[in-house]
Amino acid sequence: MLEIEAKAEVDDLEAVREAVLRRGGAFLGREVQRDVYFAHPKRDFAETDEALRMREAGGRFFLTYKGPKLDRETKTREEFEVEVFDAGNAEEILHRLGFRRVLEVRKTRESYRLPGYRVMLDEVEGLGSFVELEKEAGDYSPQEMADLFKDLGIDPARMERRSYLELLLEKI
Amino acid sequence: MLEIEAKAEVDDLEAVREAVLRRGGAFLGREVQRDVYFAHPKRDFAETDEALRMREAGGRFFLTYKGPKLDRETKTREEFEVEVFDAGNAEEILHRLGFRRVLEVRKTRESYRLPGYRVMLDEVEGLGSFVELEKEAGDYSPQEMADLFKDLGIDPARMERRSYLELLLEKI
Repeated sequence: MLEIEAKAEVDDLEAVREAVLRRGGAFLGREVQRDVYFAHPKRDFAETDEALRMREAGGRFFLTYKGPKLDRETKTREEFEVEVFDAGNAEEILHRLGFRRVLEVRKTRESYRLPGYRVMLDEVEGLGSFVELEKEAGDYSPQEMADLFKDLGIDPARMERRSYLELLLEKI
Repeated sequence: MLEIEAKAEVDDLEAVREAVLRRGGAFLGREVQRDVYFAHPKRDFAETDEALRMREAGGRFFLTYKGPKLDRETKTREEFEVEVFDAGNAEEILHRLGFRRVLEVRKTRESYRLPGYRVMLDEVEGLGSFVELEKEAGDYSPQEMADLFKDLGIDPARMERRSYLELLLEKI
């Protein structure tokens, strides 16, 4: 349930796509994702560095809890996800339990597989272009992820630990 | 989303089953239900008369929120339910959000349909036998439900507004 992830902002997704394909990246899919984030009735998730999210993608719905980040470089954290059949009722249940909608994040995500990694090319409405790396299994090394960014022509100095939600909230 | 329900304790489920069948009741099914109830991180559900439940029945999982009861005779209340694919992850998400397991209620439920109603014959572990009426649509009348109990040979004086959870907690 550990999500070993790192993210970096990029100027040119097309250049990254070409670099991924040159390294033999396999195209996994492209989808629009609508993520609704919720505030907890008691805790301040901004302080505890947690998140609760309902994602709609390809007509399916996923409720996800994200725990606090575990290191200072990447956005690796514990994550638990469950698919739900009916987003309307799921949201109504959350609402009745005192959870409040904070913000919606919309993005187009293109996914590729490289050995041991998923690479996600995100265009986020109102924010710009980002690349996410997700290690599929095994130990993680922030250095290894920084090296993979470099191999893909991405400046590791542009690694970004803040979530899309946090980045959007800072712009408001 | 209004659950128009009433419940009564009975001594003899077999007699009720015969009365339901005599009135033309259609058998809908029989299943074992395992209900886990959760406590809210901030509210005392016993005070607010709400409930959050994860039900396992026939290999499927349902998360249900129940609002406060709306009258003094029946157990009619608002209810929102969503089917989830993975009860383990759903429970883990609840746990991380601060919800705590209170108790598990196990019962065998046999369901029948009478015009406008579902009739449930419940054998509840550690509690005994109960009959639940659930009106399928339309306005509700506590008197109409009491009359249907009488028609099925059940004493309306034995109507019970406390939930199985509450009854089990009182026995501890």
